[in-house]
Amino acid sequence: MIGKSVPRVDAYEKVTGRAKFTDDLILNKCLVARVYHAKIGNGVVKFIDTSEAEALDGVVKVVTFKDVPNHCYPTPGHPWSVELAHQDVADRNLLTGRVRYYGDDIAAVVAEDEVTASRALKLIKVEYEEYPVVVSPKISMRGTEHPIHLDKKDNILARSSFAIGDVDSAMEKAAVKLKRSYKTPIVQHCHIENNISYAYMEKGRVVVVSSTQIPHIVRRIVGQALGIPWGQVRVIKPYVGGGFGNKQEVLYEPLNAFLTMQVGGRPVKIELTREETFTNTRTRHSIEYDMEAGVDAEGHLLAKEMTTYSNQGAYASHGHAIAANGLTASRLQYACPNIRGEAYTVYTNCPTAGAMRGYGIPQVCFATESFMDDIAYEIGMDPLEFRRKNLIHGYYEDAYLKPIAANTNGIFECLEKGAEYIHWDEKRKAYQNQTGDIRRGVGMALFSYKTGVWPISLEIAGARLSLNQDGSVQLQVGATEIGQGADTVFSQMAAETLHMDISRVHIVTQQDTDVTPFDTGAYASRQSFVTGTAVKECAQQLKQKILEYARTLVPGNVDRLELEDGYILADGKPAISLEDLAMESYYSLSNSSVLTAEVSRQVKKNTVASGCCFAEVEVDMKLGKIKVLDIVNVHDSGTLLNPQLAAMQVHGGMFMGIGYGVSEQLLIDEKTGRPLNGTLLDYKMMTMMDTPDLTAEFVELNDPMGPYGNKALGEPPAIPSAPAIRNAVLHATGIGFSEIPLTPQRLIDGFTKAGLI
Amino acid sequence: MIGKSVPRVDAYEKVTGRAKFTDDLILNKCLVARVYHAKIGNGVVKFIDTSEAEALDGVVKVVTFKDVPNHCYPTPGHPWSVELAHQDVADRNLLTGRVRYYGDDIAAVVAEDEVTASRALKLIKVEYEEYPVVVSPKISMRGTEHPIHLDKKDNILARSSFAIGDVDSAMEKAAVKLKRSYKTPIVQHCHIENNISYAYMEKGRVVVVSSTQIPHIVRRIVGQALGIPWGQVRVIKPYVGGGFGNKQEVLYEPLNAFLTMQVGGRPVKIELTREETFTNTRTRHSIEYDMEAGVDAEGHLLAKEMTTYSNQGAYASHGHAIAANGLTASRLQYACPNIRGEAYTVYTNCPTAGAMRGYGIPQVCFATESFMDDIAYEIGMDPLEFRRKNLIHGYYEDAYLKPIAANTNGIFECLEKGAEYIHWDEKRKAYQNQTGDIRRGVGMALFSYKTGVWPISLEIAGARLSLNQDGSVQLQVGATEIGQGADTVFSQMAAETLHMDISRVHIVTQQDTDVTPFDTGAYASRQSFVTGTAVKECAQQLKQKILEYARTLVPGNVDRLELEDGYILADGKPAISLEDLAMESYYSLSNSSVLTAEVSRQVKKNTVASGCCFAEVEVDMKLGKIKVLDIVNVHDSGTLLNPQLAAMQVHGGMFMGIGYGVSEQLLIDEKTGRPLNGTLLDYKMMTMMDTPDLTAEFVELNDPMGPYGNKALGEPPAIPSAPAIRNAVLHATGIGFSEIPLTPQRLIDGFTKAGLI
Repeated sequence: MIGKSVPRVDAYEKVTGRAKFTDDLILNKCLVARVYHAKIGNGVVKFIDTSEAEALDGVVKVVTFKDVPNHCYPTPGHPWSVELAHQDVADRNLLTGRVRYYGDDIAAVVAEDEVTASRALKLIKVEYEEYPVVVSPKISMRGTEHPIHLDKKDNILARSSFAIGDVDSAMEKAAVKLKRSYKTPIVQHCHIENNISYAYMEKGRVVVVSSTQIPHIVRRIVGQALGIPWGQVRVIKPYVGGGFGNKQEVLYEPLNAFLTMQVGGRPVKIELTREETFTNTRTRHSIEYDMEAGVDAEGHLLAKEMTTYSNQGAYASHGHAIAANGLTASRLQYACPNIRGEAYTVYTNCPTAGAMRGYGIPQVCFATESFMDDIAYEIGMDPLEFRRKNLIHGYYEDAYLKPIAANTNGIFECLEKGAEYIHWDEKRKAYQNQTGDIRRGVGMALFSYKTGVWPISLEIAGARLSLNQDGSVQLQVGATEIGQGADTVFSQMAAETLHMDISRVHIVTQQDTDVTPFDTGAYASRQSFVTGTAVKECAQQLKQKILEYARTLVPGNVDRLELEDGYILADGKPAISLEDLAMESYYSLSNSSVLTAEVSRQVKKNTVASGCCFAEVEVDMKLGKIKVLDIVNVHDSGTLLNPQLAAMQVHGGMFMGIGYGVSEQLLIDEKTGRPLNGTLLDYKMMTMMDTPDLTAEFVELNDPMGPYGNKALGEPPAIPSAPAIRNAVLHATGIGFSEIPLTPQRLIDGFTKAGLI
Repeated sequence: MIGKSVPRVDAYEKVTGRAKFTDDLILNKCLVARVYHAKIGNGVVKFIDTSEAEALDGVVKVVTFKDVPNHCYPTPGHPWSVELAHQDVADRNLLTGRVRYYGDDIAAVVAEDEVTASRALKLIKVEYEEYPVVVSPKISMRGTEHPIHLDKKDNILARSSFAIGDVDSAMEKAAVKLKRSYKTPIVQHCHIENNISYAYMEKGRVVVVSSTQIPHIVRRIVGQALGIPWGQVRVIKPYVGGGFGNKQEVLYEPLNAFLTMQVGGRPVKIELTREETFTNTRTRHSIEYDMEAGVDAEGHLLAKEMTTYSNQGAYASHGHAIAANGLTASRLQYACPNIRGEAYTVYTNCPTAGAMRGYGIPQVCFATESFMDDIAYEIGMDPLEFRRKNLIHGYYEDAYLKPIAANTNGIFECLEKGAEYIHWDEKRKAYQNQTGDIRRGVGMALFSYKTGVWPISLEIAGARLSLNQDGSVQLQVGATEIGQGADTVFSQMAAETLHMDISRVHIVTQQDTDVTPFDTGAYASRQSFVTGTAVKECAQQLKQKILEYARTLVPGNVDRLELEDGYILADGKPAISLEDLAMESYYSLSNSSVLTAEVSRQVKKNTVASGCCFAEVEVDMKLGKIKVLDIVNVHDSGTLLNPQLAAMQVHGGMFMGIGYGVSEQLLIDEKTGRPLNGTLLDYKMMTMMDTPDLTAEFVELNDPMGPYGNKALGEPPAIPSAPAIRNAVLHATGIGFSEIPLTPQRLIDGFTKAGLI
């Protein structure tokens, strides 16, 4: 079953529209809540009057920041820690009178229907004292008169650094030194299903049904936010219409839970609009990089240095973890004896940045891979050759994160495959010295990506299997299907280990913290690796129990019992069908006991996936337009569990990466902090018409760490496309842009400045 | 926690109307199915035309008996057996062209809404060939020209018998011999929530949400009826508004599953009307008893004989099990060296009889206890003294069902308490020789009741517990809360064994065969005994795991670890709180593993509960009316898990038993087989105005068999009230009625015949 392109287990449900998403499950008589968002970017509420809103017919309750618990809570979808140092920053209340960004949550209305709730919002009167808005981390970290959070006077949420070797001396010895700065934009996930939840009380407990990647974490954070025991909270996760990290955050579920408690436990729904999803959920961090490197005469990296300024926006969310992840990644792939890195995560009055597919690596990859091309350009070396020369060969072990180690052969095979696909050598030569209005170029970028969060944080997963009467099995996991195909590969895994067809594995798609094994959820490309380990062990345990039960049924002295294709083999010969065995286990008058297995497994291992992107572009110099002619991602993600699903993941990631490179950016007004284009009309997400044909290639190297030889493939595909395109533009035009997206405006500015047009 | 009257865990939900019953969960766009019922009592469909119904706007599908699978399936909620001899009789199809009772299911309509479905039913044209109707088992078993089922030529579904000693010789030696016949009526459960289900397809499987006592059995029978693997079926059981055995039968769920498959998996609902619930679900068997007994001069039973004729109605349902259960019961309580018994279960053209609270024992108890009073009357002995003289003293072991054994002391204590309560001796004397129009009497009856179905059938139960982060636990059982308070006592059990407050136990009320541990469900007063055994073992396992995990956290050499009130005690001293331990188990970076336990347990033991009812009545001779002045049930059900819930069960049972005795009967027209009063207007169920104050008393004797010393209490309360009232009327009037209910009509007839009025 592993390695086969079996159809998705949820394909039919989704194609026919029968899959039940959160909104589909809401019964009649559900109240509707809407949030009153601040109309300034920085300041405090001096006055609020909700009396008119409360008087409106159909309004059930209005709450403001004055009514909510005054302790703070954290929101990121991280595994919790019993160690204080590992716990997330708790810097927000359910509602606030201290406005930290344009759109901050000041009050909420609960009404009988959506129209009434929206009308009531307009009746709330608020007066503010405004403070100056700061949207740049480099400016914000100089300090502001009113710190965004009182306990961080300089607005710096966190800083971290490392140093290996002696960077300064090495720089002095370098034949060539280069300094460059790079910057990535704020972008948004744009999952189809906006954030939505509904909540109600049941048996004195609060139940939250939410479109989330992390139901068990939602449970914990709702408990933390409300200050109630976590066992008093039940979270249900139906089908999810995309998350990409934005649903790896606990956003409005705590407020939703609070509101249902305010209205005596009646069901209350909070469904964000698309505009709220842009402004009030999470974005990808905009990060600025100051880079410096020195190379010797042969093009070997002698020293490199990177300083990172991450724009956190108004609240801590995942906070420094994203910048730190990038900082770590800057050590992992290229051999360099002297490296220094420093990262700042800085509060600003922007919308809050959080987790998004790649978790800091698309940003650092853009900077690093652009810089690698810029150095190669500077020393006149082919950028692919320059990379090959500097890539770590053989086995790599990180100096700081000991358990992170990787066989690096995969990337070399990926590069070979990618270069061959794009006809690298041929086209690098052919596109030299172009001069016309239409120019072509090929570029590439590579990356590595670690699987799961161990050893930085906890990795734990749970699975339960039970044998049905017909010899099929039920599979429950706490990990979540969010569109990526997780349920399908978990089913394949169970089928593989139990040696049965996937049609015999019935996976439970809906997670319910009351009955679902504990698992922290969908993020960090962890599920097929970490949860997969739990599924495999659970299947092995069930198999063991089946064979033990078989021993009570199979007569005679048997040395060896095996489970194969729905039969128990006794010394190699079919002895009893699994179905007959299952029927005995349910209904035998002498010896019945239904066979189930459950595993809760901490996973203390890790592995690293890698890959690259090769792109060929055509640049219209006068229109400032980039056309991607051909593009390929090549991934070393170990054994492919399901090649078709793997390709699908790569296609989706490339789509996201190309948009990141050429068109997507959430613009924030510098004066007011107000998002300028937070709608799908104005935010330039690529459409199918803008998207070139996408090619996904793989290098299936054996990796013994993953349960079935697999490693991360969820996030990596989104990483390398943007720098590959940027580098192809450099090849085509000689201009190395330092900031994405490469919009016509930016290209025209760059070409004009360079005198090309 | 055991023995405390903690409030029901679902009290708030039910009182506030928030508990979600099946109909509450139905989402929009659910199709509605209605069944076309036969308009004759016996015959075959010669012609059916559904074309007009199909042409009606809004009708989605019409199916008839010609469209359904032609293999038969069984319907009773029995545990299945892998042994052919133990399997239930499979005698019905989803729909039929052979009409066996008035209202048999011929066709079904699926429409967009209920009005359209009802209209469509009226457009179906059916022509029949009618056969004579037979409603009496004694007549039916003589054979009919057209056997009701072809494989039972004499209409006898089953016959069984036993013989102990030499009845004939003993009869000859008897000082007094008596022959009497008794008959009980057809009654209906009258649960508030009519039978309802809805079904849809999901991932190629069929899902049935049903108000049922037995979700795991519904799964199996839907699979059997449709001929699909049982793993392809998922059954969900929400809150249930009463069952009393009528939902221990799989009635319209298979048709519902079939219909959704006929409309491409769209959701389809089948909700019965009250009239359909009377006619087309199940009733309590009407049973006729021919009794004979011989006693010696001192009033000792020398011999007794009982022949039973059980009116099965049109389909096998639980079939002979009910008559056989009564046959067994006739041996269990009174010492008699020579006993003979014979039971026939006979098909007739009545509505199908099935399981109902007491499962044959209310019927046999009416016959036996009336007969005991009639013998006592005949020999001039106080009926309580006569019983005491003949009751088995000490330990009883059944000759046929070896594992059924009981300490019989309980009944003597019950009798003492009941006699004292009602002032037996005083009133038996006081009410002698009355002559006026208003006469009073006291009467009593006793019973015994075995707990669960072992050794006749399988007993198996499952439970799963998991430890939440706050030290509370989730409890899942496959057994079902159907209004009786099961969830509350299961929670008490887990709390007791885990030594925590019940508020720390969160039980999952909804069963879902995809995730719920296997358990056969709510019937046979088995759950607190059988499932309780699984809950206890599961809690013991979890406790063991908690203590093992504690060993990794508690420093130093510790001999003894205990769990008490949310703390781990190390050698008697508090070492770590359960909450802190739980947090470590979830989030420790060094050693995390969420603690869960699951048990699937076959229970091969049994115990017997007993009790009695004492009633004082006032009879209005001229109006033929009985007024129950005072009534008490006294039960030996072992340790009371929750005295308040226990009293509630007894009150409900007494209410049912009194109605059985004085007012309830479903009348069937002898010519047509048509129910004459199948509505709550015409069927004389008692109202609160008709119900006297009910007193529940208990004798809590130690019984080591039950997990917490408990034994059956669900069904027993419904058993003894009817004969106790009948015997009180005998005391008041000297007339021993042989048939219930004691309606004015029946009393006036009896008194007139006896010359009393």
